[in-house]
Amino acid sequence: MSIAPWRSFLANALKKNRSQAHSRYFQLATVRNDGTPANRTVVFRGFLEDTNKFKIITDTRSEKITEIQNRSWGEICWYFTNSREQFRIAGNIIIIDVNYQDSELQTVRESTWQDLSDNARIQFAWPHPGASRDNQEAFSPQQPDENKPLDNFCLLLFEPVKVDHLRLRGEPQNRTIYERDEMGVWDVKEVNP
Amino acid sequence: MSIAPWRSFLANALKKNRSQAHSRYFQLATVRNDGTPANRTVVFRGFLEDTNKFKIITDTRSEKITEIQNRSWGEICWYFTNSREQFRIAGNIIIIDVNYQDSELQTVRESTWQDLSDNARIQFAWPHPGASRDNQEAFSPQQPDENKPLDNFCLLLFEPVKVDHLRLRGEPQNRTIYERDEMGVWDVKEVNP
Repeated sequence: MSIAPWRSFLANALKKNRSQAHSRYFQLATVRNDGTPANRTVVFRGFLEDTNKFKIITDTRSEKITEIQNRSWGEICWYFTNSREQFRIAGNIIIIDVNYQDSELQTVRESTWQDLSDNARIQFAWPHPGASRDNQEAFSPQQPDENKPLDNFCLLLFEPVKVDHLRLRGEPQNRTIYERDEMGVWDVKEVNP
Repeated sequence: MSIAPWRSFLANALKKNRSQAHSRYFQLATVRNDGTPANRTVVFRGFLEDTNKFKIITDTRSEKITEIQNRSWGEICWYFTNSREQFRIAGNIIIIDVNYQDSELQTVRESTWQDLSDNARIQFAWPHPGASRDNQEAFSPQQPDENKPLDNFCLLLFEPVKVDHLRLRGEPQNRTIYERDEMGVWDVKEVNP
């Protein structure tokens, strides 16, 4: 696989905005079983090595898992506040949970867990997200093993097929669309903002 | 109509983050005709007076219009970077275009146009968004009338029915869900983050 042509622009945006922790957050939209859209902020965990796939982590108890199991299509909206540019990234999502049958990807799931802070890991031992608020003690579980992910820890791989890059700085603004064809080749075109 | 119980928290977030222009931007997800999600950054233009409806502006030539005409449901994800809190807001969208038959809402469409900067207004006279890039001259049209909106200027009214407010500061984080019933009454519950 080759690095997609939009990757250098995204790397540049990450560099230009790195002073701000929130530059690694983006909004991931999916579709619920009833056909309505869902939208939430998630953290960019880097690319799966030698691919253009974004790594995202989640809890198997979260609603987005049911949504993705039903419809695997998502759209990321990533707005960089410093450089004033937006990437809209459409793609397909694969769920790498504890039962996923691929030892290489299980290794990636494990290393992603190992790279988390203690504070991020312990949240997977908290009570069910979205359920009625539990008491304070429920949020002080034993610190999980830092090497072996809890069963509900889940890696998502988001594979882009279309990227719409808008740069607000510019008169007029610049907008480029990248689309991957069936052969995996990226078509690039400049469009009106 | 009464002001929804989540409004004071949103007003507070806007106040705490007002030093940053991007605190008035949020991500709006809709669903395309093919069932895939769409997601983009839009600007908060305030509430429709005496209601809980968000005002958003758009161009009738933009793809979101077709999406909303087909499925009027949307979800806003609004992350405030300073105060580290997120509002996920699900609701229904009404399109107030030049042909919308309601003189009061046409007046709101006009006043929203009048409140824009010259720079924002002229963009509605630019060539078709998303079409192959036009030459530079196409982006220097005559400045439109500041009182009378161009026909392709469109007001969207987003009416929330569910709000999921997550505050990342807190040990553990705090999360409150507001849901409006058929009588227009908001139910409020604290849930696990």
